[in-house]
Amino acid sequence: MDFSSKLLENAVYEMSQLPGIGKRTALRLVLHLLKQPEQQTNHLVEALSKLRNEVNFCKTCNNISDTEICEICASPKRDRTLVCVVEDIRDVMAIESTSQYKGLYHVLGGKISPMEGVGPQDLNIVPLINRVKQGEVQELIFALSSTMEGDTTNFYIYKQLEGLKVATSTIARGISVGDELEYADEVTLGRSILNRIPFENAIKAS
Amino acid sequence: MDFSSKLLENAVYEMSQLPGIGKRTALRLVLHLLKQPEQQTNHLVEALSKLRNEVNFCKTCNNISDTEICEICASPKRDRTLVCVVEDIRDVMAIESTSQYKGLYHVLGGKISPMEGVGPQDLNIVPLINRVKQGEVQELIFALSSTMEGDTTNFYIYKQLEGLKVATSTIARGISVGDELEYADEVTLGRSILNRIPFENAIKAS
Repeated sequence: MDFSSKLLENAVYEMSQLPGIGKRTALRLVLHLLKQPEQQTNHLVEALSKLRNEVNFCKTCNNISDTEICEICASPKRDRTLVCVVEDIRDVMAIESTSQYKGLYHVLGGKISPMEGVGPQDLNIVPLINRVKQGEVQELIFALSSTMEGDTTNFYIYKQLEGLKVATSTIARGISVGDELEYADEVTLGRSILNRIPFENAIKAS
Repeated sequence: MDFSSKLLENAVYEMSQLPGIGKRTALRLVLHLLKQPEQQTNHLVEALSKLRNEVNFCKTCNNISDTEICEICASPKRDRTLVCVVEDIRDVMAIESTSQYKGLYHVLGGKISPMEGVGPQDLNIVPLINRVKQGEVQELIFALSSTMEGDTTNFYIYKQLEGLKVATSTIARGISVGDELEYADEVTLGRSILNRIPFENAIKAS
């Protein structure tokens, strides 16, 4: 693409560094901003740089928070013996929106992925082990994505926990509520049969 | 969506004001920025605010430019008697990339669209008429999108040109090069038959 303006080229280049935003989309977004009142760009720019420079991560669970300890960790209503291990804040938001979980979280900040150069030392794993060592946590629930990277990360943490007195569990994998059996993939269907649950429990959950 | 941080919520909100970016995508983009070095956000923020505050529009053709008169208008190699009327800078870039056009441009900044509250006074039409009145321009090529809004805008400008000595033309509408006839829509196909061209001209163009 040939740009008539260096400023425009620069803005499009920086915008296209965002994931899923190509050069054409970046140009569309930047031209949109140019058409809108100057205020809108200023608000966007301010919000982004404020977030990046002033963002806080909860000292306990590593969730994004405006305070030193996040609202969830600080709440007296939550069960402090239960910790759900997740990849990032989006997973916290997803689980919170179910209103089914009353424990705490631990945000790893990613998964172990040799392909992308992410090793255990890049994740928030040591603080998790230390958290368990303090003795308050009685159960860790692994809630990472069901991919090879997720399984590797689960297993790595599980190994690190050896000798510590803590129960571990993983969220149930199975057929989604509302799904038809014939369209389910065979791995999921197979696992859902192996890990079947007493019917009484299913009645209680619904 | 419930956010654990006001800063995050704000950044996501501002990001989701961009066209085609929903709340979920905005969250994904913002979290991506948080994972990258601070530098990347700073570069993006700087490029956007620099563009918005220092952007220049060419005094002659209204194209985005870093100088008072854009490169195209300033070039001695271009045919100054020919002006192509386009909607925005993307159209200029598209036509430039064909390397077929050696005239100048006039960027309107949009199309007349009562539905979106865009009237002739919101567009760069008066400067176009004044440009024609100066006498150098001998032909205006209308190259707006082939929509109702584009046609309305073409016709409005055409009416404003009454009494002025300038030829007007519009880019050819027809079957795209490489397209198969059976898949063409009937309006385009009909027009391409009505506006057929001498075969010798087609040979010359290819």
